[in-house]
Amino acid sequence: MSRVKPAPIPMRTVGPVLITGNTIDNEKVLIPLATYETPLWPSVGRGALISRLSGGIKVTVVDERMTRSILLEATDAGAALKAGNELKQRLSELNEVVSQSSRFAKLININYQIAGNLLYLRLEFTTGDASGHNMVTNAADKLFPWILENYSDLKYCSISGNYCSDKKATAVNGILGRGKNVVTEILIPREVCEKRLHTTPEKIVDLNIKKNLIGTIMAGGLRSANAHYANMLLAFYLATGQDAANIVEGSQGVTHAEVRGGDLYFSCTLPNLIVGSVGNGKGLDFVDENLQLIGCREAREPGENGRRLAAICAANVLCGELSLMAAQTNPGELMATHLKLERKS
Amino acid sequence: MSRVKPAPIPMRTVGPVLITGNTIDNEKVLIPLATYETPLWPSVGRGALISRLSGGIKVTVVDERMTRSILLEATDAGAALKAGNELKQRLSELNEVVSQSSRFAKLININYQIAGNLLYLRLEFTTGDASGHNMVTNAADKLFPWILENYSDLKYCSISGNYCSDKKATAVNGILGRGKNVVTEILIPREVCEKRLHTTPEKIVDLNIKKNLIGTIMAGGLRSANAHYANMLLAFYLATGQDAANIVEGSQGVTHAEVRGGDLYFSCTLPNLIVGSVGNGKGLDFVDENLQLIGCREAREPGENGRRLAAICAANVLCGELSLMAAQTNPGELMATHLKLERKS
Amino acid sequence: MSRVKPAPIPMRTVGPVLITGNTIDNEKVLIPLATYETPLWPSVGRGALISRLSGGIKVTVVDERMTRSILLEATDAGAALKAGNELKQRLSELNEVVSQSSRFAKLININYQIAGNLLYLRLEFTTGDASGHNMVTNAADKLFPWILENYSDLKYCSISGNYCSDKKATAVNGILGRGKNVVTEILIPREVCEKRLHTTPEKIVDLNIKKNLIGTIMAGGLRSANAHYANMLLAFYLATGQDAANIVEGSQGVTHAEVRGGDLYFSCTLPNLIVGSVGNGKGLDFVDENLQLIGCREAREPGENGRRLAAICAANVLCGELSLMAAQTNPGELMATHLKLERKS
Amino acid sequence: MSRVKPAPIPMRTVGPVLITGNTIDNEKVLIPLATYETPLWPSVGRGALISRLSGGIKVTVVDERMTRSILLEATDAGAALKAGNELKQRLSELNEVVSQSSRFAKLININYQIAGNLLYLRLEFTTGDASGHNMVTNAADKLFPWILENYSDLKYCSISGNYCSDKKATAVNGILGRGKNVVTEILIPREVCEKRLHTTPEKIVDLNIKKNLIGTIMAGGLRSANAHYANMLLAFYLATGQDAANIVEGSQGVTHAEVRGGDLYFSCTLPNLIVGSVGNGKGLDFVDENLQLIGCREAREPGENGRRLAAICAANVLCGELSLMAAQTNPGELMATHLKLERKS
Repeated sequence: MSRVKPAPIPMRTVGPVLITGNTIDNEKVLIPLATYETPLWPSVGRGALISRLSGGIKVTVVDERMTRSILLEATDAGAALKAGNELKQRLSELNEVVSQSSRFAKLININYQIAGNLLYLRLEFTTGDASGHNMVTNAADKLFPWILENYSDLKYCSISGNYCSDKKATAVNGILGRGKNVVTEILIPREVCEKRLHTTPEKIVDLNIKKNLIGTIMAGGLRSANAHYANMLLAFYLATGQDAANIVEGSQGVTHAEVRGGDLYFSCTLPNLIVGSVGNGKGLDFVDENLQLIGCREAREPGENGRRLAAICAANVLCGELSLMAAQTNPGELMATHLKLERKS
Repeated sequence: MSRVKPAPIPMRTVGPVLITGNTIDNEKVLIPLATYETPLWPSVGRGALISRLSGGIKVTVVDERMTRSILLEATDAGAALKAGNELKQRLSELNEVVSQSSRFAKLININYQIAGNLLYLRLEFTTGDASGHNMVTNAADKLFPWILENYSDLKYCSISGNYCSDKKATAVNGILGRGKNVVTEILIPREVCEKRLHTTPEKIVDLNIKKNLIGTIMAGGLRSANAHYANMLLAFYLATGQDAANIVEGSQGVTHAEVRGGDLYFSCTLPNLIVGSVGNGKGLDFVDENLQLIGCREAREPGENGRRLAAICAANVLCGELSLMAAQTNPGELMATHLKLERKS
Repeated sequence: MSRVKPAPIPMRTVGPVLITGNTIDNEKVLIPLATYETPLWPSVGRGALISRLSGGIKVTVVDERMTRSILLEATDAGAALKAGNELKQRLSELNEVVSQSSRFAKLININYQIAGNLLYLRLEFTTGDASGHNMVTNAADKLFPWILENYSDLKYCSISGNYCSDKKATAVNGILGRGKNVVTEILIPREVCEKRLHTTPEKIVDLNIKKNLIGTIMAGGLRSANAHYANMLLAFYLATGQDAANIVEGSQGVTHAEVRGGDLYFSCTLPNLIVGSVGNGKGLDFVDENLQLIGCREAREPGENGRRLAAICAANVLCGELSLMAAQTNPGELMATHLKLERKS
Repeated sequence: MSRVKPAPIPMRTVGPVLITGNTIDNEKVLIPLATYETPLWPSVGRGALISRLSGGIKVTVVDERMTRSILLEATDAGAALKAGNELKQRLSELNEVVSQSSRFAKLININYQIAGNLLYLRLEFTTGDASGHNMVTNAADKLFPWILENYSDLKYCSISGNYCSDKKATAVNGILGRGKNVVTEILIPREVCEKRLHTTPEKIVDLNIKKNLIGTIMAGGLRSANAHYANMLLAFYLATGQDAANIVEGSQGVTHAEVRGGDLYFSCTLPNLIVGSVGNGKGLDFVDENLQLIGCREAREPGENGRRLAAICAANVLCGELSLMAAQTNPGELMATHLKLERKS
């Protein structure tokens, strides 16, 4: 393993985006985005403009938790059931063990699945401002010996049983929660829609149904219906020191649009958004600068910076999603714009 | 939109990995990896060591194609059926149109799906050494007017109907193909397994069944069964100028292991690996250096550098997957290693 | 194993349904339905009434094939690739073997998947008027020794590798085809919608988006978006001697609705509808009577009775789907109707 | 709608199966099966024989609940979140309303999902011995007005939002529970395996990995890995008056096998098994007889007959699954047996 020069990904700030909701109150925030796909900047930028012309993007952080599913083998399914049910009742004992591994990790819930005599124990934690990958692995590492000591019918199979599930597109994360569950909504006046997005509310709604909803279903998608969340997530993750492999589950989400009173209601739901304002990758200078720029390095209660970060990331997703959807309602616009921008850059 | 300093992601080279197969013949290749997750380097490095001690990783490139699904509305399902069937028979005419957009893009197949009166036309191309995103969008942009002109029963709905499908975890990509379909295999002598991975073939096989296969199934995974392909893909993509948002579908793949004559057969199947040795993001200095380092900038027939790149990327995935699986067979090893490495770095 | 009296499932005929399309030309067909769920009869009956008041249900049979995926182990992925590619080119040789097993089975295509050294060979046949389960298993049984003889690098693993896939909800059946792929469409005048379904086109469309499309996506559905196809399929299957376990994949399908010129466009797409007018279960008296009633025992070209049967089955599905969707747009209607009907019966 | 003669499905009893576990203590139970697929009887019969020679099938009922997801529209996601969180805390108030609809239905939990401003409220009930479809719809019908009265920010969208989810293959049912979650296990001595199943533990385990686990993953299956659960479920459902459309979700389950001390451990996990010993379809004479035959019409605490029924149904599934898996380890056996049996019958 030899050190080589770092990989310098092109980066710009776009916006500002006007954001409001249960973590941010009517603020304009500049969005840093690092990407090789240069058309992404003006695309998100156009969405940001719309946000300012439409009273802002309303962002609701619905839930937060980070998980690790340990895998145990029981003598049989009956023993697995007994252990699973008991452990769900012993959260406070388990939290004493967890507290030895971190002062931020707190076990808030346990879910389990039994297959044959295999017990998949999904441990769910809050992890302060960190995304919490290491925190929950560390906690699980401490809990495992305690569980084996207390349940002689169980033995170690794996520190992760893939029921977590980390960096994989699965159904469990959206249904039981992993990372931040965030909903973004905006109501765009028809005039803004026509003038700035060169389309109509009706066209966007129609395209969303036929492309994002039905098209993804035909493709065999999983708990997902969107045009390109992955692009906005990647660029934001690289700019803010996140583990960008989490775009795999992060990009599972649903775009829902409808015409309301002639205007366009447009929303992006991201149930598995994994971000942190502290932790791995956050020590680099540009990351620190970017986190400061978006106001996620303030002195706040643990968790508040993390939720704010998730809200900004999700607003960024809506901006890019809206812009691409608008472009695709017009034949030829997408390619023309790509060509123009990539030649320029 | 304002320019800021680029995002410098930490990068190292690991290996070399010994690779053989239908695109590479018994070569040792150093792997460049850019990542915030520093434990990834020694993890892939350990796999690389195993490759050299086990006669190499055999890599088979099974298929290649890049796709764009355009979305049309027909007067009814009957008209959609007629158009879909006819267009499948008119590939050479369509290729004349395609040839105006690029000298590398070649339409090799069409698949379609009909839902109500909606026609999802999945255009499948070879695209030389490029991953081909823009090439196929551009080709689709040229094909669309031709199709509308020839089929008055059809009208434009979207340049992309999400049946492509790009940067989304779906079933269609693996089943019909998108990007490179690559299988990697290795046969690891028991002694190497025990001495260098500190585990046994039996333990790896057992863990693979219970974690990767059954665990992912319980999580509601989709055409996927692996521990962490996304990590190795991301680091390789960032180091070689790929559009890393393609790890979303790229990370769908299956790890299969079995004990053979006391030794360990270990394989990773990656059916949707999207990479290119030319195109967007490839103009940066470090990208060019890295592509040269791994021998993907040689004068070869169009497509050969691209396939070589896919083979190396997939071998890298096997290295990291093997190493993590080995670690998880031993209680406590994963966390201990993480802590040690992250403190060091 | 001891014989006991048969299980007499309650049966009625409803309709007639007015059907038109590429297999049936403007006919009124009575639908026999066997079910314990008695409210199903008036529900489908109401849909049938709508069909007669709206110019009929247009049914398009898009495709037909029956499949069996045999599973082979190759020496490595390279050998699997070579065999897979060659076999796709040897259809006529393979069809000589197939012809020994049945005069109706005809191998029309081969698809394969490779995972490690495993080769899943999906053999696709037309099977005349039969659903074809046994026909394709029998053909596969004949083909297996031939393949093993011609490819010494391959060995037997299983007569079915679950990539068929039979009686399982998977993505492959819809994407590659299994059974009949059928689309049904109807355009219902607003007045009919309001007077007979007690709802509006707008309400149905809205409910379809929020319940069938988004709701199923949130539930983690797979290539499916409908309210209750399974109910109509089951009752029709039991009445016509089908293997009703095929409702598992048969019920995967998509309801798409939109307002067109103030009227309601409503469609049901059933890509994996497995039915036969001959074969197992068809010897029973009531089955024979029902198949005659719906005109599927006529002297026609092989396959025509089977396609007609699929068209009628799918029209039946649209009737029931439409009726339930209409009911659910009105608070309280569903339960009130159920209670009334079940008490009566 | 006109009455016609009932549909008499052929029926036999097979077994007895030896069952033990947390609902049944070491009993031999005859299994009634109604089916057109006559080879199913000897197939399940062979599994029953194995159960008697191997100390019985251990059946663990892990969980039970029946669900209905109502769909509401909130003014925005924030209002949806507030209502969802509050309603989870008001179970006892809600149960007062539920108690007006049934003396058996009891609301035990609420889960919700938010997409945009849509609130999918998954109401989870215990329903005594009934499968509970109508009971929960009726309860939801009573709860809806109460909720709308208490939450002026919400309005009616649908009595079912497909997040239940009923008669659809989705991920939510297995993860959150719907119907009975049942695990069956058996340890078959090697000698029994060889003599009666004409195979070895190693062969069964190998086939399970390559066909059920990897094969289903390649097919794009969803939370499922088995050979043919649907067949055994259908025949048992038709014989015992169940709503057989529930085989759609019921057949999602996982077969797990391993070699233990030279013997065969074989298990079937059925997380969404929906059955009832009372309710719709249970009034028919043969149903009543069959339910008596298997001991599910005894005077017991509410729910006990239902759980017993689920246990027997699941044991039946293991019998048929084991038998088919054994047959498929031997080239040619499956087809030969089918032909022999179908000719005989």
